[in-house]
Amino acid sequence: MMIDVAEELCEECIPGLRIDHVDISGLPMVNPDLVTDGGEGFPPAVEALRDRVHAADCFLFASPEYNYSVTASLKNALDWASMGEHNCWADRAAAIVCAGGDFGGGRASFHLRQIGVFLDLHFINKPELHVRAFADPPKFDEEGNLIDVETRERLKKVLLSLQAFALRLQPKDD
Amino acid sequence: MMIDVAEELCEECIPGLRIDHVDISGLPMVNPDLVTDGGEGFPPAVEALRDRVHAADCFLFASPEYNYSVTASLKNALDWASMGEHNCWADRAAAIVCAGGDFGGGRASFHLRQIGVFLDLHFINKPELHVRAFADPPKFDEEGNLIDVETRERLKKVLLSLQAFALRLQPKDD
Amino acid sequence: MMIDVAEELCEECIPGLRIDHVDISGLPMVNPDLVTDGGEGFPPAVEALRDRVHAADCFLFASPEYNYSVTASLKNALDWASMGEHNCWADRAAAIVCAGGDFGGGRASFHLRQIGVFLDLHFINKPELHVRAFADPPKFDEEGNLIDVETRERLKKVLLSLQAFALRLQPKDD
Amino acid sequence: MMIDVAEELCEECIPGLRIDHVDISGLPMVNPDLVTDGGEGFPPAVEALRDRVHAADCFLFASPEYNYSVTASLKNALDWASMGEHNCWADRAAAIVCAGGDFGGGRASFHLRQIGVFLDLHFINKPELHVRAFADPPKFDEEGNLIDVETRERLKKVLLSLQAFALRLQPKDD
Repeated sequence: MMIDVAEELCEECIPGLRIDHVDISGLPMVNPDLVTDGGEGFPPAVEALRDRVHAADCFLFASPEYNYSVTASLKNALDWASMGEHNCWADRAAAIVCAGGDFGGGRASFHLRQIGVFLDLHFINKPELHVRAFADPPKFDEEGNLIDVETRERLKKVLLSLQAFALRLQPKDD
Repeated sequence: MMIDVAEELCEECIPGLRIDHVDISGLPMVNPDLVTDGGEGFPPAVEALRDRVHAADCFLFASPEYNYSVTASLKNALDWASMGEHNCWADRAAAIVCAGGDFGGGRASFHLRQIGVFLDLHFINKPELHVRAFADPPKFDEEGNLIDVETRERLKKVLLSLQAFALRLQPKDD
Repeated sequence: MMIDVAEELCEECIPGLRIDHVDISGLPMVNPDLVTDGGEGFPPAVEALRDRVHAADCFLFASPEYNYSVTASLKNALDWASMGEHNCWADRAAAIVCAGGDFGGGRASFHLRQIGVFLDLHFINKPELHVRAFADPPKFDEEGNLIDVETRERLKKVLLSLQAFALRLQPKDD
Repeated sequence: MMIDVAEELCEECIPGLRIDHVDISGLPMVNPDLVTDGGEGFPPAVEALRDRVHAADCFLFASPEYNYSVTASLKNALDWASMGEHNCWADRAAAIVCAGGDFGGGRASFHLRQIGVFLDLHFINKPELHVRAFADPPKFDEEGNLIDVETRERLKKVLLSLQAFALRLQPKDD
């Protein structure tokens, strides 16, 4: 749901930033038996993921927190796109928005940051966006739409900070 | 492979400790659509996992490290067995053996410890066993068998420490 | 301030648990030049700390969070009491109460848990107490007294859980 | 000792990068009673630290690991230079070299990275330099001089990576 709002925000008010929402729920679990060609051949759904990751200029991760860490599903996508000779995540800017209980998913975000050291992601530091999904005032309505204005404003700031950091990391002669 | 050696060690020289090796590779990815009965019905493979986790007196986790964290497959099993009203891991002793590159999987083990706070696992502190799988002397032969005597000895100490901690945590009137 | 309330709670309603509040603010910074006798002689204030740590049955850490981690002052005390041949913290139950901003000091608590693996501390898992000190309703009055009833109740539960875990870890023949 | 070698390396073969080695051992422990002027006045040694931190273009942290985390002394310096309205570390590139036992200080480096999120430091991801100080071959001679050629080469790569990242983060119109 956060990603949908991020898409809207980009269209409405952030020229130059566009979200390509990658649904990671249908990927097979990482399994060496599914890798062919001496480590460089992947199942079609994984190849498609890797192509889109490779093509992106920067990344926005939206993750719920399960058991004080990232979901298995997110870790699975992170691992698939880093395998083989070509780590598709490498050397790009990234930002995290989490939703969870007490810490709004903050524990998951620090695990993701540690994973990102190996993936060679450059995370923005500020602002952080950890949505305490179950605390008042309500953040989402019954259909799961983000209805909290403050969270929406902060998400916009995250996107602007991500865009600025991605531009800053680009080669100077571009 | 570490689990196979742990099984041997228990049979050979640790009375009272027996390994029930749970293969987690065939589990479906965590998915709310697969959960029925108001959050308490799970797919058959998940129910089987949960039953065996619930029946255990303590846990030995053997995990490789992918991208500085636990594998998606392990996180998936941890999440499945914690879902619903009954967290099947709760209040048991646990130990971790990792294998990896530079740190021997040590970064994965600290992520697992943080996850374990929510799962309510009581990890032994010492000894730690992080196997630097690619450093000399070779730890495994070409079939993947553990051939390093020092690692084998240390694994035995981990098992003895786990057993002692599990017994210590049992109610006094047992 | 949390420690003062913990002292009161123990006196009022937790038979068998008594707080010995150790003020760590006057310790010198860890410095090998201050250590004598081949690594076993310490400045008087450090010796006093070490004696009290050694004598305790379990530990309650109360820590604010500075810059997403524990304070230098707490780390300093942890390090002093672990030095030399005798790690004074070893093999005892422990609990953490934190106060901070967004996460109520939760990031500091996870750093302390990792430090505790080497110190050989056995932290309780539940309940956690992370006080969001600046969020409504106000937790402390102008003199710094804890005025939030819910936080006080939760602190009591932390103390009871710590006591129960410390007893559980005691040898069976005690 | 690592910093001394880093200084030499910069002079010998890295034009444009110069180390200003800040000795943090003489700082007082962070203490609100030592802060004046409504939070903006600091003891002279702290003011001197803050000025040098503020003037730097990027940072090289060299830290031993104590008890699986950074030293109290380093945390103290990090906290002093971040206090008040002006966080002196903000928005600069940084790198870490650690020395320690098993993991070569790697656990300390990940704590420093988490602290750096709040301090708004941009750490390089690669290469990492965790020196396993007590493993063969010997890394330091009896006077503490770095004698391991491979470690020296890797330190040079860390410095080059830090310099490149610092330049990349500079405004484009410089």
